[in-house]
Amino acid sequence: MQLSSEKSLHFSKRIREGGAKSPSLNFQPIIFRNNQLKILDQTKLPGRIRYLNIKNYREVAKAIKTLQVRGAPLIGVTAAFGLALEAQNYPKSSRELLKHLNHVAKVLKQARPTAVNLSWAIERCIKKIESVPLTAIRKKVREEAEKIYTEETAHSFALGEIGVKLVKKNARILTICNAGKLAAPGLGTALAIIYIAFARKKNPLVYVCETRPLLQGARLTAFELTQAGISTILITDNMVGTVASQVDLFLVGADRIAANGDTANKIGTFTLSIIAQYFKVPFYVVAPISTFDLTKPNGKSIPIEIRNSKEVVTIQNHRIAPKDVMVYNPAFDITPGALITGFITDRGIIYPPFHKSIKRVLGQ
Amino acid sequence: MQLSSEKSLHFSKRIREGGAKSPSLNFQPIIFRNNQLKILDQTKLPGRIRYLNIKNYREVAKAIKTLQVRGAPLIGVTAAFGLALEAQNYPKSSRELLKHLNHVAKVLKQARPTAVNLSWAIERCIKKIESVPLTAIRKKVREEAEKIYTEETAHSFALGEIGVKLVKKNARILTICNAGKLAAPGLGTALAIIYIAFARKKNPLVYVCETRPLLQGARLTAFELTQAGISTILITDNMVGTVASQVDLFLVGADRIAANGDTANKIGTFTLSIIAQYFKVPFYVVAPISTFDLTKPNGKSIPIEIRNSKEVVTIQNHRIAPKDVMVYNPAFDITPGALITGFITDRGIIYPPFHKSIKRVLGQ
Repeated sequence: MQLSSEKSLHFSKRIREGGAKSPSLNFQPIIFRNNQLKILDQTKLPGRIRYLNIKNYREVAKAIKTLQVRGAPLIGVTAAFGLALEAQNYPKSSRELLKHLNHVAKVLKQARPTAVNLSWAIERCIKKIESVPLTAIRKKVREEAEKIYTEETAHSFALGEIGVKLVKKNARILTICNAGKLAAPGLGTALAIIYIAFARKKNPLVYVCETRPLLQGARLTAFELTQAGISTILITDNMVGTVASQVDLFLVGADRIAANGDTANKIGTFTLSIIAQYFKVPFYVVAPISTFDLTKPNGKSIPIEIRNSKEVVTIQNHRIAPKDVMVYNPAFDITPGALITGFITDRGIIYPPFHKSIKRVLGQ
Repeated sequence: MQLSSEKSLHFSKRIREGGAKSPSLNFQPIIFRNNQLKILDQTKLPGRIRYLNIKNYREVAKAIKTLQVRGAPLIGVTAAFGLALEAQNYPKSSRELLKHLNHVAKVLKQARPTAVNLSWAIERCIKKIESVPLTAIRKKVREEAEKIYTEETAHSFALGEIGVKLVKKNARILTICNAGKLAAPGLGTALAIIYIAFARKKNPLVYVCETRPLLQGARLTAFELTQAGISTILITDNMVGTVASQVDLFLVGADRIAANGDTANKIGTFTLSIIAQYFKVPFYVVAPISTFDLTKPNGKSIPIEIRNSKEVVTIQNHRIAPKDVMVYNPAFDITPGALITGFITDRGIIYPPFHKSIKRVLGQ
């Protein structure tokens, strides 16, 4: 146990510092160094570790759209690095560069509609360069992207430290999709709490929903957690009702949180929240402040991405359903604030009534 | 619409009579004729229509274990035909035959533990031959198997007629796994109601949960319903929370129903019942009387089959999870009677309080 937890902390530190020496732990999701952007192709995990060398903003947008890089905080950071990369490579004069970067920002923001972190990070970078001398644009956009990365990394550790207080010894935790190191800089969001609980010898046992259609739970979360030596039980999504009576805590990530606490997250999260309520198990959403969107009064105004039916009717290019069936494939659902126990953020835990407490914590 | 519903009824009649002329409709799940047993290999659907020529009881047991034939009422009937086949083919004298058939009964009953229809059908056949002259055994066991098949077919139509009264025009119905023609003689159980509603021009729209791990919803139910021309929307299991507000009626099958109404059915059914309760949508279990087991006072005493972890971590032989992850893979769950609106059976609809009403209807 001593050895395992030390190994895990060591791993966290290396990830934070941007380099991993042991091949088995080498899955830092994005690397931006010397104005070069590399993205770990998450669609190939866990079978294959393949990094994409990203050449321009179109490739960034494509990687985000096709989920080669995913996770709300991570796509925000990736888009910011995409802007920095494009600023570096664009050959034209500074005035044209500003115009070009505004175009790039627009394209990147449209890559995926639900996670607010994407537009949040892009707008932060654009705002930063609007008021600086034209000659400083390249440097400023890179600095801002790096600042976002550093801040989001720190937020991950901060919310992990805050959330770990809710984890009792030998806690059984259920999670969905991937809210880990592959979804956010640092230790992730929901999984940051689990990594720190493990390092503190709390011996967590994690139930991971496989998360159809794209199996981020089976492919990514089970991969991350077993790599770290954390006890992990993989279940199909429909087993939640059966295991919930053995669960002490639900921890999920988020793609966008409205002013009243309604939360967009991976499809299946709403179902989990109903099950958690039935069994009276605490249900926490874990997210940095960048995932809140006070311009949305409630979940109804959050755009939900509907993805291609192919994701449902084929698995690894193998057809699993008849050709003429209709398919519904929303990538996200809305969990009403009323079913959420609290939000674990880098600024503390936010409890109901959310329409007041969220505004207070966000300082608006 | 007129044409579609006629086509559907015609199909039903052909299935009932044991022959289908149109290749697209040719998926009668078992055929027993001239003492030959053929089983449609359901593991290959919907991609391939392949019939297995079953030679002996070991092959019957194997087909049941590997889910080449599945569905609670159907495996009961299949096992009965397996006994008949074995009686026909066994070369030895009559006394040895009786001993052999008792051995065969034991093996077949052990093929799968949860669906009570399996032991129910086998015990019916064995009881029938215990008190007849030894020379009559072969004929009697065949007659009893055929009688079970005929009765279960009639029960399917009967419960379909009873259940269709609950289906309003343009009803949106949600179902899980496969409780259709591939699961029970006749029109199935839950799907029998949908087939008849469609024939009566009630224009049902059916949400089908894909039903991981073995995808019986995507592979079998979507196949059956689209073949029949019924509007079918395939969803992943974790989308139930999201679509439930649009659903008028939940209809599910059953593998074993205890005396108090607790019901074993495909994994995921319990989760559905919690969602149905949250949205206040009626949740009915559809099953013939052969699925009730009054020797079990409640769900805790029903054996739940735990299947191989390979079913979860691989899909169509493609690995989707890391090698060292633990897996939980119960094939069934228990839905408490308290979450069930009623049981639609061939003897009428059974409403709460189940501990009284079930005994009354079963006449015990």
